[in-house]
This record gives sequence, C-alpha cells and structure tokens, in this order.
Amino acid sequence: MKVKMGDQTRNLFAVWYEDNVVRLIDQRKIPEALEIYTAKDSDEIAFAIKDMVVRGAPAIGVTAAYGLAMANLSGEDMEKAVDKISKTRPTAFDLFKAISYMKSNNFDLGAALRYSKEITGRCKKIGEIGNTIIKDRSRILTHCKAGALAVVDWGTALAPMRIANSAGKKITVLVDETRPRMQGARLTAWELEQEGIEHYIIADNAAGYYMSHGEVDLAIVGADRIAANGDFANKIGTYEKAVLAKENNVPFYVAAPGSTFDFSLKSGEGIPIEERHEDEVLKIGNIRVANSGSRSKNPAFDVTPSKYVTAFITEYGMFDPSSLKSLKSKMDADLFMR
Amino acid sequence: MKVKMGDQTRNLFAVWYEDNVVRLIDQRKIPEALEIYTAKDSDEIAFAIKDMVVRGAPAIGVTAAYGLAMANLSGEDMEKAVDKISKTRPTAFDLFKAISYMKSNNFDLGAALRYSKEITGRCKKIGEIGNTIIKDRSRILTHCKAGALAVVDWGTALAPMRIANSAGKKITVLVDETRPRMQGARLTAWELEQEGIEHYIIADNAAGYYMSHGEVDLAIVGADRIAANGDFANKIGTYEKAVLAKENNVPFYVAAPGSTFDFSLKSGEGIPIEERHEDEVLKIGNIRVANSGSRSKNPAFDVTPSKYVTAFITEYGMFDPSSLKSLKSKMDADLFMR
Repeated sequence: MKVKMGDQTRNLFAVWYEDNVVRLIDQRKIPEALEIYTAKDSDEIAFAIKDMVVRGAPAIGVTAAYGLAMANLSGEDMEKAVDKISKTRPTAFDLFKAISYMKSNNFDLGAALRYSKEITGRCKKIGEIGNTIIKDRSRILTHCKAGALAVVDWGTALAPMRIANSAGKKITVLVDETRPRMQGARLTAWELEQEGIEHYIIADNAAGYYMSHGEVDLAIVGADRIAANGDFANKIGTYEKAVLAKENNVPFYVAAPGSTFDFSLKSGEGIPIEERHEDEVLKIGNIRVANSGSRSKNPAFDVTPSKYVTAFITEYGMFDPSSLKSLKSKMDADLFMR
Repeated sequence: MKVKMGDQTRNLFAVWYEDNVVRLIDQRKIPEALEIYTAKDSDEIAFAIKDMVVRGAPAIGVTAAYGLAMANLSGEDMEKAVDKISKTRPTAFDLFKAISYMKSNNFDLGAALRYSKEITGRCKKIGEIGNTIIKDRSRILTHCKAGALAVVDWGTALAPMRIANSAGKKITVLVDETRPRMQGARLTAWELEQEGIEHYIIADNAAGYYMSHGEVDLAIVGADRIAANGDFANKIGTYEKAVLAKENNVPFYVAAPGSTFDFSLKSGEGIPIEERHEDEVLKIGNIRVANSGSRSKNPAFDVTPSKYVTAFITEYGMFDPSSLKSLKSKMDADLFMR
C-alpha cells in the first residue's frame, strides 16, 4: 500500500518477514504515528495478534503463519505453539485457516511466505472483480477497516475501491467511524487518504441517515468468518448497517478471500463472538469519556444473516448467498484452499 | 431529579429561575463535574441553548421561555428577542412552542414559570402512563438522553423508567452511547446512576446485536419534533435503532409531551435537520481521534418514519401513529396547548 512519509511515498506491507523477524505496521498507533512493531519470536507474534497490533482476518492469518514458522525454526514444541497462536483471538477464521495450512506444510518458513503471497494476490483479484460493480461517481459506504492493513496489501472491501480509483473512476466513500475502536475513523480513513480517495468519516449512527436519503449507492464490508449458508461475522455494527441497507434497497457486498469461508459451519450461530474489555467503550485512549459509575458491554463482532447480503466478492468471482455451493466446489478444486 | 453530592442526595432541576437569573445544570460538564451555569440576560440564554449547556427539546423550550421573560423585564425590543431565541437551534419544536406560548402571555415571567411547571408535570404523567408498559425485569434500550436533564425534572423517555424503578420493578437499561456527542454515555448513564437504575452503556453499533439476540424487551426514546403523521425527528441514530427494532419485533416507543408535536407539518420531510460542526465527529474533547487528513459529515438528527413507531407515550395517554388525530383533538381542548 502507498504510505506518505514526509515528501516521499513508500510502498509498505501491513506485515512482512525480513532478517529473521516479522515486522508489522503497528495499527494501535495509526493515524498519529507510523511505527513498525518487530516480533522476534512466537510469543511476540501472539501478543501482536491479541493486542491488536495487527487486525483484520487475513492479516491475522498471515501473522499467525509467520509465528508458527518462527516457533518451528527455534525448536518450540509445535503442539504448544499451535495452541498459543490459536488462542489469541476467537472470531477471525483466517487464523485457523493459516494454522491448518502451516500444519500441512510442516510449519515451513517457505510455506508462510507462500501463504502471505497467495492471500495478497487473492485480494488484488477481489479488487479487480469488485471494481466491476463500482461506477464512476459511486458513493460507497464501508464499516470498520478492510483495507491493506487488514490483509498485507490491497485489502478486501477497500481493494475494489483502490482499483476503481486507479482506473480513474471518481468515487466517494462514507466511512463509519466504527466505535468502539474507531478503525474506520483511524485506519480506513488513513488508508483512503494515502490513496487520494475522497471520503468522509461519519458517526455510525449516521449511516442509516445517508442510506435513507439516497446518498449511498452501495455498501462494501469485509468479514471475519463466513458460514456455509452465507451468514457472516464482522465488526460490531455490520449487522445494523446490513439491515438498513436492505430496508433502503442499497446493495450490500461482502468482500473476502476463500480463506475467510468456514464451510464446516452450517450457519452463523456457531461463530464464537469475542467480548472485549469494557474500557474500550468507556474510555478513549486513557481518558474516561463515559459516566464514571457506569459499566458497559462490549461485543466485538456481530453475525449478519445471509439474507441481507447481495453478494460475496471473492477471488473466484461474485457469489450470492444461494450460490455458495458453487464457491465451495471451486475452493475444493483449489490446492491452496484444501 | 436526585443528584448525589458527596454524602448527600439533593433534588435539582435541569433549569430553574431564582434571584432574577436562570440557573442551568451545565450539561457540557456532566459527568465529570456538576456545575451550575447562570444566565443573567437573554443573550446568555441564547448562548446556553446554542452551545448545548442545555439540551433536550422540552428543557430548551423552558429555557427559551425564561429568556423571553428576562428580555421583556429588561425592556428589550421583543421582536428582536424572539428572533434571537428562535435562531438558536432549528430542530426542537418545543423551542417554538415555548416562544408562541410566551407571545400569547405578553412575555410575562409568571407565564414562563407556569410553562416550566406544566411541562414538568406533564413529563411526570408520561412516566406514570409509560410505567404501564414496563414489566418487572424488563430490558429497555434507549438512545441519546431524554431524562430530567432534557426536561426540568422526570424526563420523557426516562420518566417511565424512573416511575417503574420507584414502584420496585427491577429493570435493566441498555444505553446507546450516542455518538458523536455521547449524550447516552455521559448524561443518560449519569442520571440512571443517580437513580440507582441498573444500566450498561453500549456502542451504538451494538444495539442491533442485543435486539437480534432477544435481549431487548422494548425501546423508549424521546423526540425533538413530531409531525402530524407520526414521523419524528430525534438524535442521529434513532432511525437506525427504530428500523432494527421493527426487524426484530421489539416494540419501539416515543415518549414526548404535547409540546413536541408539530401538527402544522404533514410529515417528517418538513423537519429541518441541523448539520453541526465536523469536529464533533473528528475530535473527542480537544483530542483529534480521527485521521488528521480526513473530513467528516455530521447531521445532528434524523427523521424516523411513523411506520417504525409502536406508540407515542404522552401526557394524554398512549397513541399509535394512526390515532394521532385523537391526540390532536385532546390537545385542541387543552388551554395550555393552544
């Protein structure tokens, strides 16, 4: 992804391997600072996933793959290493996909590098396919962050917008700020600025307002895990925006690589939802913003039933929820996805 | 309303007149501090409304009534005074109701005091009527703040909860934090704590999650202006929660006194929506939380079509949107409302 550093624009990945360590753009520090977090072993990888140095299902998968390769290289007990990495975050399916891929490939560093390259290439493909649904002057709503920071490069939901923008289409993106962690206002907006794509941050409460005023042509979001019937987990609030999109006849797309599809789950009911610390709601940074005597509840994800999804944008093409069997056939025939 | 001050509990109003000045609980400072703002003339009243020292349609109306009485007492040109007060905020109908009431009563201080007492009594009545729909162990969702701070005492949406709580019903309130100004997390939560009512602050994004999990029995919100057909304006995000309530078969109630009904408007299309400064979204306090190169859009209210409303809770009883004509007849027969 393009990143402006002073007068220069550099191309950076969200996560990469070099000199026997894993480097990650520290997503806790964006947009105030661009800092690189260095993970020297699998413990530091586990911390980076858990503490949200790295966020976004595909990027978590790539980071986990590197972590297992590092554990293997330093002679760790691999059963324990797998256990440690798999317990970092419960919802994102890419984490488990990456672990199973690394298991099948003897936890080899080369496999982790291939995994990263594969996922990135697949997200570029998502961008090319998703670009076909974006018209010149499209006004697009997105929720949370599903850009390059969430993958390695390109992004999922943002990949079609990147390609549309490069192709000269003038688009405007409405970015839900995405409370409580504000990934929209902080990370997605930062990425869109780097790419020079026009965008406005809105309170999550205002998404329905713009949809009902006919000011949103389509919505594109990412996903953390998609069940066989098309129900999908994504950042809290996605369900709300999907219901509102249907109510206002706004097409609602989910962009995700095959690695986010969990065909072992019949429906979204089986997707575990992470409950995070209540301070994420009550404080911003270290400052208490809520009434001091009050408590909060903080589910990090929600599950959107498939009936609200217009189509899934994948590297294999676009699939509406009723045609996911055909996606499964394509994935079954794809060596990487087995 | 009860307010804890050290070891003591005092009874305070959101706005009151004493010693030739108007005193207001400064709602910009709650919950960090309980400070009283003193308005010595109509300019300071106008500032208090505009800068959101006072918020909530009925409380804005009462404050405006006092402001006009003060202007009259100090011999101001009353046409200019009315113009000044009416331009403070565009959406809340109570502001215009109060102005018209004061006009009909020669801008008399006694009339302002009666107006305040009337509105407060009517909100208590709303509480008694609304209490009938609250069961023991009800789990209630609310958005923004419609408590005593929004009126003078009792509140609108919070009045039924106060009465239910006093009656010994055990209730739990889910409080939307209500971005961008966080009136839920800051003001509603503060009021509920003072009353000892169990509550949890949630991200606005999580309301749909709890409704779809069957963890909300009913929703009660306030209103800033209600049109003749039952469309109503309220804090941004209310429309989203109303759509989600209908989708999940959660009864959705709007609590408001007659003074919030604008029967001159056929539908919600005519309600002016205030667009506020984009820094309300981009900053929290003085701290920039969003990406520095990004802009925002910030509509302060939205209009919820009447089809999403189960019933209006008023001092005259409960009315579903199709029976608002009968509410109008009652208001026409009510000297205060003419």
